[in-house]
Amino acid sequence: MPPFRPSLRLTHALELPASSRAQRTLHPNFFTTRQVPAFFTPRRCMSDSPPKARPDPLEEWRNPKPSKWPNRIRLLMLPFLGAIVYSMYTDDTIKTEAPTIAEKDSILKRENGISEQSPMRLRMEQFIKQHQKQIVAELEKVDGQRFIVDTWERPEGGGGISCVLQDGNVFEKAGVNISVVYGRLPRPAIMKMRANHKALDPDVESLEFFASGLSMVLHPKNPLAPTVHLNYRYFETADEQGNTNAWWYGGGCDLTPSYLFDEDAIHFHKTIKAACDKHDKAYYPRFKKWCDQYFNNTHRGETRGVGGIFFDDLDHTEKDQEQLFSFVQDCLSAFLPSYIPIINRRKDMPFTEEQKQWQQLRRGRYVEFNLVHDRGTAFGLQTPGARVESILMSLPLTARWQYMHAPEKGSREERLLEVLKNPREWV
Amino acid sequence: MPPFRPSLRLTHALELPASSRAQRTLHPNFFTTRQVPAFFTPRRCMSDSPPKARPDPLEEWRNPKPSKWPNRIRLLMLPFLGAIVYSMYTDDTIKTEAPTIAEKDSILKRENGISEQSPMRLRMEQFIKQHQKQIVAELEKVDGQRFIVDTWERPEGGGGISCVLQDGNVFEKAGVNISVVYGRLPRPAIMKMRANHKALDPDVESLEFFASGLSMVLHPKNPLAPTVHLNYRYFETADEQGNTNAWWYGGGCDLTPSYLFDEDAIHFHKTIKAACDKHDKAYYPRFKKWCDQYFNNTHRGETRGVGGIFFDDLDHTEKDQEQLFSFVQDCLSAFLPSYIPIINRRKDMPFTEEQKQWQQLRRGRYVEFNLVHDRGTAFGLQTPGARVESILMSLPLTARWQYMHAPEKGSREERLLEVLKNPREWV
Repeated sequence: MPPFRPSLRLTHALELPASSRAQRTLHPNFFTTRQVPAFFTPRRCMSDSPPKARPDPLEEWRNPKPSKWPNRIRLLMLPFLGAIVYSMYTDDTIKTEAPTIAEKDSILKRENGISEQSPMRLRMEQFIKQHQKQIVAELEKVDGQRFIVDTWERPEGGGGISCVLQDGNVFEKAGVNISVVYGRLPRPAIMKMRANHKALDPDVESLEFFASGLSMVLHPKNPLAPTVHLNYRYFETADEQGNTNAWWYGGGCDLTPSYLFDEDAIHFHKTIKAACDKHDKAYYPRFKKWCDQYFNNTHRGETRGVGGIFFDDLDHTEKDQEQLFSFVQDCLSAFLPSYIPIINRRKDMPFTEEQKQWQQLRRGRYVEFNLVHDRGTAFGLQTPGARVESILMSLPLTARWQYMHAPEKGSREERLLEVLKNPREWV
Repeated sequence: MPPFRPSLRLTHALELPASSRAQRTLHPNFFTTRQVPAFFTPRRCMSDSPPKARPDPLEEWRNPKPSKWPNRIRLLMLPFLGAIVYSMYTDDTIKTEAPTIAEKDSILKRENGISEQSPMRLRMEQFIKQHQKQIVAELEKVDGQRFIVDTWERPEGGGGISCVLQDGNVFEKAGVNISVVYGRLPRPAIMKMRANHKALDPDVESLEFFASGLSMVLHPKNPLAPTVHLNYRYFETADEQGNTNAWWYGGGCDLTPSYLFDEDAIHFHKTIKAACDKHDKAYYPRFKKWCDQYFNNTHRGETRGVGGIFFDDLDHTEKDQEQLFSFVQDCLSAFLPSYIPIINRRKDMPFTEEQKQWQQLRRGRYVEFNLVHDRGTAFGLQTPGARVESILMSLPLTARWQYMHAPEKGSREERLLEVLKNPREWV
């Protein structure tokens, strides 16, 4: 019984195909995919040999080759392909609609590439793709093993790139995902979002939307090394003419140790605070508190970990789009300096079997938060056609639930619980 | 670090104490408790020695001694104690209220004991208590180790008896719980329940309720032996005069194998069907289908296991109360004959490390269902002051999540998934 059979496709980039008017109402798939090379198929997800020992199947993803079709020629093919599919449909409502933002973006990207003048959708997509590569490369240096890269698409439209390292040298399970989704929001979802975004038109049956984000969870093997989670995302809706209507940013990152080293929590928070302070001195205290409130196993009366920052719905009422994009960029860029020094000083520390068991119990709490309380997970699992493997990638490889477990008085385990019940200020 | 520290109290029975008018509005605690004997305190939850090797701390629970206060004397103390507490309160609304059903039951039980003429509340309580003892005794024979018995109470009122066997010879984790709760339903809960129970008065701010049930989950160690779950419950509301208003029964049981033996699924379903058929030939097919629909990891497109039966809201519109009580009694009584032969033929079968890993992955799916979809768990975790350890006792000791795992073509593991995606008729 092989533990993993990759029915995967590799791609060198998230690339929007020549979309057609017909595809629009069918929730188009936006990702070109290619079959996985033959030598990759029977491979286990994680190699036991050092990274450089064999040809790298991800080389093309890391360093994409230019397409053999120049941009202009591919663009010229657009109306031709479009006409073929168009001729297959006779629905008048389709004929009279303006191009979708997905179609606009596809053309813009191929025609002009991505620059500071591009729509925020394309800039965010480019930004998270670059950072996914950079983070994966740094984590591979720490672990010594390679991530598998898995490009996926939803039948209903959209897709992403999942990078997963499972049963590595340092990481028990590590996932670094990006997703870029175009779709339509139904009326109930619009009405719900209007609570925070008055710009949303309440008089339409549905709205086109764009959502993109990078999310990451790293569960190290060593119980003395903390789990870390990060997510930054951008959301946008368009009016019937395809113009941007409402937009907002959300995200954050938080640290979940099984054994608390104050210096780790302080370093993590200090690094994030510095990124926040560059933009607004009020951000760190405000988003630190939000984090403690959000990542909370309310049924246990304890936070998931020692926190970090969390924010949502940051839109024009907060700051202008450029300023917020710059803030999110700095937050994401702060991740590697906030976590790499911690994992490097903990990954090789000796530990006991008892410490490993305590880690497993804390992993159980992590599962409880993600499956019971996390809104993102709940939303994902309720979405028809969602990619469950990417949503639940955040769960640890192994977890444990022991009836009525309580740590010894005065132990390190008890001290952790005390801090989780009463969140501290770390800077 | 001891994995288990029992801050537990043992009791010889669920016994309603002399309640007072004051206690009513404070959500009274109904369980007399006694401190755990000293020799029990430092004991690990599970002994490694055979059951008879030392004095049995549960002897009193199993064979209760009569109280040193005769019933009549204890009853005479009621008005005296009541008067003391009553004098502490001056709220007129309390003074003019009729006795609660909790108070009525307390008096009735002490005065007359429990007979076929007693209210259904007391008969159900007595029935589930008797069956909890019987089931625990039979499971101890199978395992060779003893359950720990833990009596608990909610600060907001109510309580129960949790019997747990953890890391036994046969069972990785086994829990057999009963709970008996008196309380008040707020208006939103009443309005929600009215969808199924028109007898509920829509014009009141709150209603007194009674809920009792036995619930059980057994996770065997051997991956060839199936997990089993069972729950039978009775719910009742009272009007302002303390008379029964609406009432209903719910429950079911279902089998969750990691490796499918058709003969086990057939025996399990046949035994349950026989209990159902005694009451109504339509019950088994109807409740079997309901079970497949309920115990369903919809996000994975697979049922939790090979099913059994599930039903809810069975009230006077279904059959009269005596008939339904008799049905539930027969269902619960069918449990031991439905499961004991299965566990006995699987518990000592040889298995491989790969089979153990597959079991761990299936345990992960069990956790997903219980934390994401199970309404009982969600309701419990949202209830302020709920006993989390009893609610989450249903989770396995250990579980595993592996990214993109898929079983080999033609394997037994693949066959299980196929059956979970397309539930079968077993009888």
